[in-house]
Amino acid sequence: MFLAKIIGTVVASQKEASLEGLRFMLLQPLDEKGKPAGSHVVAADAVGAGVDEIVLYASGSSARQTVVTDKRPCDAVIMAIVDSWEVGGDQRYKK
Amino acid sequence: MFLAKIIGTVVASQKEASLEGLRFMLLQPLDEKGKPAGSHVVAADAVGAGVDEIVLYASGSSARQTVVTDKRPCDAVIMAIVDSWEVGGDQRYKK
Amino acid sequence: MFLAKIIGTVVASQKEASLEGLRFMLLQPLDEKGKPAGSHVVAADAVGAGVDEIVLYASGSSARQTVVTDKRPCDAVIMAIVDSWEVGGDQRYKK
Amino acid sequence: MFLAKIIGTVVASQKEASLEGLRFMLLQPLDEKGKPAGSHVVAADAVGAGVDEIVLYASGSSARQTVVTDKRPCDAVIMAIVDSWEVGGDQRYKK
Amino acid sequence: MFLAKIIGTVVASQKEASLEGLRFMLLQPLDEKGKPAGSHVVAADAVGAGVDEIVLYASGSSARQTVVTDKRPCDAVIMAIVDSWEVGGDQRYKK
Repeated sequence: MFLAKIIGTVVASQKEASLEGLRFMLLQPLDEKGKPAGSHVVAADAVGAGVDEIVLYASGSSARQTVVTDKRPCDAVIMAIVDSWEVGGDQRYKK
Repeated sequence: MFLAKIIGTVVASQKEASLEGLRFMLLQPLDEKGKPAGSHVVAADAVGAGVDEIVLYASGSSARQTVVTDKRPCDAVIMAIVDSWEVGGDQRYKK
Repeated sequence: MFLAKIIGTVVASQKEASLEGLRFMLLQPLDEKGKPAGSHVVAADAVGAGVDEIVLYASGSSARQTVVTDKRPCDAVIMAIVDSWEVGGDQRYKK
Repeated sequence: MFLAKIIGTVVASQKEASLEGLRFMLLQPLDEKGKPAGSHVVAADAVGAGVDEIVLYASGSSARQTVVTDKRPCDAVIMAIVDSWEVGGDQRYKK
Repeated sequence: MFLAKIIGTVVASQKEASLEGLRFMLLQPLDEKGKPAGSHVVAADAVGAGVDEIVLYASGSSARQTVVTDKRPCDAVIMAIVDSWEVGGDQRYKK
């Protein structure tokens, strides 16, 4: 999984039928200091996360292991909202 | 998933039998501002998308979770046509 | 999937028993202009392709969705021989 | 798999229900000399590893092949704690 | 699959129970000329390969399609020992 910030939303009305009702969020992956790192990803939301929240997302087939993404053509899912993380005993982020 | 623009088409008459009837599109991935970012990808079309449209595509085993790609040797699929997206409250793209 | 040119062959007599009979080809991925782009890949051949041909290959679990690769430890497969592709209405390659 | 050092922990109370009880560790991948190499990864712990330990982690669907990650939206798992490794007959790391 | 040289071994006594008996090898991926290219990978050995041998390895779920890796948290496997390869009719490597 990777840490990411939700920076926006994507609207797509014409899509594979099984995707109806899924919310697509635009994510900016973060490094361990909370700084932007790497390219954006579009992920389905499985936990009720909102814009500006810091989340964990899973990719690949693991992204289909939630009730909302099961058997759907979705390769990235937000599966947790991050409360905090620490590195070497120092808290780097707290919600 | 990633945002991409359909920039072209690929024709391949000699192929794995199960791929008969699939349309292969050439995609240019886009960054969150809609600028080209990263290398092209060839994806099957599951939503009736056409050249110049902005789409979402899924990769890996998730690309097989559509009626047209099920159980086929296909690792990328266009699963939605994008209407719009926004970042930080600003609309960055509208169809 | 990605576009690639078959640039060579790999011989491996000592291998997982299930791989017996598979042909391994050395691929040079191509960009949308047909220029070499990125690192080589070794793929199994599912379509009777030969050296110097331009092909499409699929990676990951999708590479096992052919008769010759089913349930085998193979993560890349040539699943189509390319006839032509075009970008923005211009033909970039024709066999 | 890749070698990595556990550099921290991530706390996420609001998450997919199936993830309850999993511990998320922040990993810094290492090169063959034991130096940091590449971007951090967040992995679930399947072996009781702790901060500062050197571990092996597996990604993708393979990350779900443990008792604690089975059928969960988790794409990286710590599946071994490293005792030592050697390159060209020289021990590069010993716990 | 990718070409690689086995440059070392990794010892890990505390690991997921299902991994008992697997040998972990440290691989240096090679380019089509046989030169080191890209970051090392740790792979399980399914073919009795040894240090200094040139091999092919498969990644992802395909790495679990061998007797020794089936249903185990292992995402890379050595599935063949390379005898030789050629590019453009020139032999680039012979065991």
